[in-house]
Amino acid sequence: MKGFIVFEGCEGVGKSTQLRFLEEYLKESGQEAVFTREPGGTPLAEEIRQLILTKQMSAETEAALFAAARCDHIDNLILPALREGKIVVCDRYIDSSLAYQAYARGLGEDFVCKMNEYALKNCMPEAVVFLDMDPLHSWRRQKGKVVENDRIEKEADEFHLAVYKGYKALAEKNERFLCIQTDVDKNVTAGRIIEALKKRGIIS
Amino acid sequence: MKGFIVFEGCEGVGKSTQLRFLEEYLKESGQEAVFTREPGGTPLAEEIRQLILTKQMSAETEAALFAAARCDHIDNLILPALREGKIVVCDRYIDSSLAYQAYARGLGEDFVCKMNEYALKNCMPEAVVFLDMDPLHSWRRQKGKVVENDRIEKEADEFHLAVYKGYKALAEKNERFLCIQTDVDKNVTAGRIIEALKKRGIIS
Repeated sequence: MKGFIVFEGCEGVGKSTQLRFLEEYLKESGQEAVFTREPGGTPLAEEIRQLILTKQMSAETEAALFAAARCDHIDNLILPALREGKIVVCDRYIDSSLAYQAYARGLGEDFVCKMNEYALKNCMPEAVVFLDMDPLHSWRRQKGKVVENDRIEKEADEFHLAVYKGYKALAEKNERFLCIQTDVDKNVTAGRIIEALKKRGIIS
Repeated sequence: MKGFIVFEGCEGVGKSTQLRFLEEYLKESGQEAVFTREPGGTPLAEEIRQLILTKQMSAETEAALFAAARCDHIDNLILPALREGKIVVCDRYIDSSLAYQAYARGLGEDFVCKMNEYALKNCMPEAVVFLDMDPLHSWRRQKGKVVENDRIEKEADEFHLAVYKGYKALAEKNERFLCIQTDVDKNVTAGRIIEALKKRGIIS
């Protein structure tokens, strides 16, 4: 969908910071944009988000709840805003479901695609800004730790590595992905994102 | 799944009454059974039920929420009880999704099946007790009215007729369906249900 931008990346990669940079840039250059997030973005989807974040559930139940939240988000926020000619920037979308659930949790792409096929209504992003950083570096940065040795942390490391590999596999086969190498200087990264989006003609 | 019984039927057909009759019969004859309902049956699924019953949402969002609730219900109540050798009796299940959403709301069987394929984990009922009654009779009985002429009521009539036709189409092609003609005397209907379930060897 024209004007629909999604930000994706592993935990701790600096998505929130980069979203703020883009928001500021679009505002200053007078381009009307709506910033939203998944799961969430509408009152019902935010309630579903609370269930996802606070309750114990199987990977399948979680995937169905993500699809329900996405469906409501598309119906009531994303599509109406795009129809009004606004740019929509979403923090995570279907590729998070694919990287986390299909790849890292092992549900498989087929499962997640089937669950989302009708929810999506072909509302796919024009560009996915993928913030590319060594996942163990970003994850440990997020946790504020340098080295961890216990079993849980090792499992967490493996999980985040699997998510990263999922993203890389998706990036390889989908033209919608813009792989942005993150830099130690966040302003440099922000500049790269704006350049890449301009080059695609999505923002000016 | 052996020992898994589902009750289905249009609004006002007397399902709750018949579920109570069966519960009483199984209790008196010393057959251990768990009675549950959809959407619901587990704490998470009951929270999802509240969202479904109280919020405005599209048919697609609703279908995804039903699938999520069903998934949790199967994982945490239905399968564990069946594995313990108990009879499980559920008020509505996948055939409600098919009759109401696929047929009456027009989402199509393909949509609902795809959405539910992984949620179900092949946990299909051994028998579906379908309470068969003229849907306009049962709907008006529920509403406590005999004749209605306004547009809304006409739409409601058409909807309930479409649900009924959906059930009849499902019953025709699925051996799991036990079509029970409802009688003016609810005890007669209860007797028919118990006989049919005994004949299938599901209860004794």
